[in-house]
Amino acid sequence: MFNLDEKITFHNKNNDLLAIGEILVDLISTDYNEDSLSNSYQKYFGGSPSNIVMNAKKLGIRSVVASAIGDDGLGNFLLKQLQNAGMNTDCIQTVHEATSMVMLTKSKSTPIPIFYRGADYQLVYTSKLEQYLKDSKVLHFSCWPISKYPARQTIERAIEIAKENGVLVCFDPNYHKRLWEKGEDGIGYVQSIIAKSDILKPSEDDAERLFGSDLPERYIEKFLELGAKLVILTMGKKGALVSNGSSIEKFPSLATEVIDTTGAGDAFWSGFYTGIIKGHTIRESLRMGFATSAYKLQFTGAVIDLPKLEVISSLYRM
Amino acid sequence: MFNLDEKITFHNKNNDLLAIGEILVDLISTDYNEDSLSNSYQKYFGGSPSNIVMNAKKLGIRSVVASAIGDDGLGNFLLKQLQNAGMNTDCIQTVHEATSMVMLTKSKSTPIPIFYRGADYQLVYTSKLEQYLKDSKVLHFSCWPISKYPARQTIERAIEIAKENGVLVCFDPNYHKRLWEKGEDGIGYVQSIIAKSDILKPSEDDAERLFGSDLPERYIEKFLELGAKLVILTMGKKGALVSNGSSIEKFPSLATEVIDTTGAGDAFWSGFYTGIIKGHTIRESLRMGFATSAYKLQFTGAVIDLPKLEVISSLYRM
Repeated sequence: MFNLDEKITFHNKNNDLLAIGEILVDLISTDYNEDSLSNSYQKYFGGSPSNIVMNAKKLGIRSVVASAIGDDGLGNFLLKQLQNAGMNTDCIQTVHEATSMVMLTKSKSTPIPIFYRGADYQLVYTSKLEQYLKDSKVLHFSCWPISKYPARQTIERAIEIAKENGVLVCFDPNYHKRLWEKGEDGIGYVQSIIAKSDILKPSEDDAERLFGSDLPERYIEKFLELGAKLVILTMGKKGALVSNGSSIEKFPSLATEVIDTTGAGDAFWSGFYTGIIKGHTIRESLRMGFATSAYKLQFTGAVIDLPKLEVISSLYRM
Repeated sequence: MFNLDEKITFHNKNNDLLAIGEILVDLISTDYNEDSLSNSYQKYFGGSPSNIVMNAKKLGIRSVVASAIGDDGLGNFLLKQLQNAGMNTDCIQTVHEATSMVMLTKSKSTPIPIFYRGADYQLVYTSKLEQYLKDSKVLHFSCWPISKYPARQTIERAIEIAKENGVLVCFDPNYHKRLWEKGEDGIGYVQSIIAKSDILKPSEDDAERLFGSDLPERYIEKFLELGAKLVILTMGKKGALVSNGSSIEKFPSLATEVIDTTGAGDAFWSGFYTGIIKGHTIRESLRMGFATSAYKLQFTGAVIDLPKLEVISSLYRM
């Protein structure tokens, strides 16, 4: 059981965080528009795992992302962005499918993203990926790679190897029906992966999509029943509930000013990972995650220019 | 054999042209850009069959398009564009895949489109589609629907029913490797469809992709050997070569001013179809096709505000 007042101990490894999963182009409309003849979109670097590793590198830990891009102009664009950020790109695979993209037309009602998935789920398990995995302290992934083969198989194998090599398995259960093939039991599969994970960070929306409408405390119970060891249920400005299976603790949001919520969850993960890697207790690391998220909320964009974790800690008086 | 100085006779039908195939969003960058952090794109109504039927309606014949859109914002956008243009949308199918999209980043070197195919090839053969097909004079399609199942099956069935019902089968063999699954013999399949078609309009680039580099006259021979009955090989400003199997005739381009070549081929098809439907000879109709193309070349955009065919004919002194 994870004791919130203890540190997580790791084996000595050459890398801290390995995130496996989607890297993609976010195409976001510049204006709010329902269906005009032609409106304007901007392209951005995107994909939660890539955002997390870029954040984590800025905060001060060694981070690598494993993703698949297409052999096309958008793939080159993503690769160059990683290179410009000084990221290790050894685990970026180039495949014969279009670089994945998410298109979002802003709308005054509900903006619904359209997923164009090509390259991202073509990620295969390679000896190079295994080498990085064995030599990392934390494995992170989300629902994207587990939603389709062959990436699903890559994650299944990665979880096995992580467990054999003392790598902490962290899963963002950001379930979204549209990621799965029609008719497939995505929820059932996500639940089977929860059972194999050490740490989970669902949002309230994720929990509702997985279990239907319920109380936050009941969501926590359900994740624990499925086998998760530490559950961090984030609830926006209401803060978060955290449970290690023996008790549920409430953590307040540290946000004072909210300019843009994009990437707030990724900022949490990166702050939390940096905390546990740097030898802080789980409780301290959770607060560092919420502080990083609060810091990010003040700026527009999914990936912002984060300072070192120590700067954020002192800003939020830890 | 098609005699260029004769009319094509059609059965009496309630519709003139039925185009089956892709309808999609064209996302085109507003600037020329290799790989900047974020650049700007505009979305446009696209897909050659839809462009052709919209042109043909403006030129003065009854036209219907059969295509599949996704149940998403971009699908709604495309549907509304068709409705705003006064098109019949009875044969537009809504499916559970993302609306297809082509993304084009303009580049000073070679701009390479990225294909995001979702809904378009989910087009299925329905009794409504069959009813429209039986009641049309011309069936038009391109390589998009034949590149993937189930749309491929829809076209195969449509060709059979067209032949049984005296519908002219016209095929744009715009072969592009990226449309096919990796490893599949797309060229072989396109050749098998050429064998079943009455009229073909390849561009020189299409012919080169299908047969390798060769002389235009040799391309014509190859298409005829495969079984096409009338081949219209377009060669940009060099005009076109046309053969019915007994001789090859050269037609000059009628273009005087070239502002934008986008949609020039679609304009040709629509002018040609309007000519043959309105009872002109094949030779006259070919010239009407080239005149419509020349008219379109003066304006920017894939679908422009074409006048009636008679106006174009008089502008180009026919």
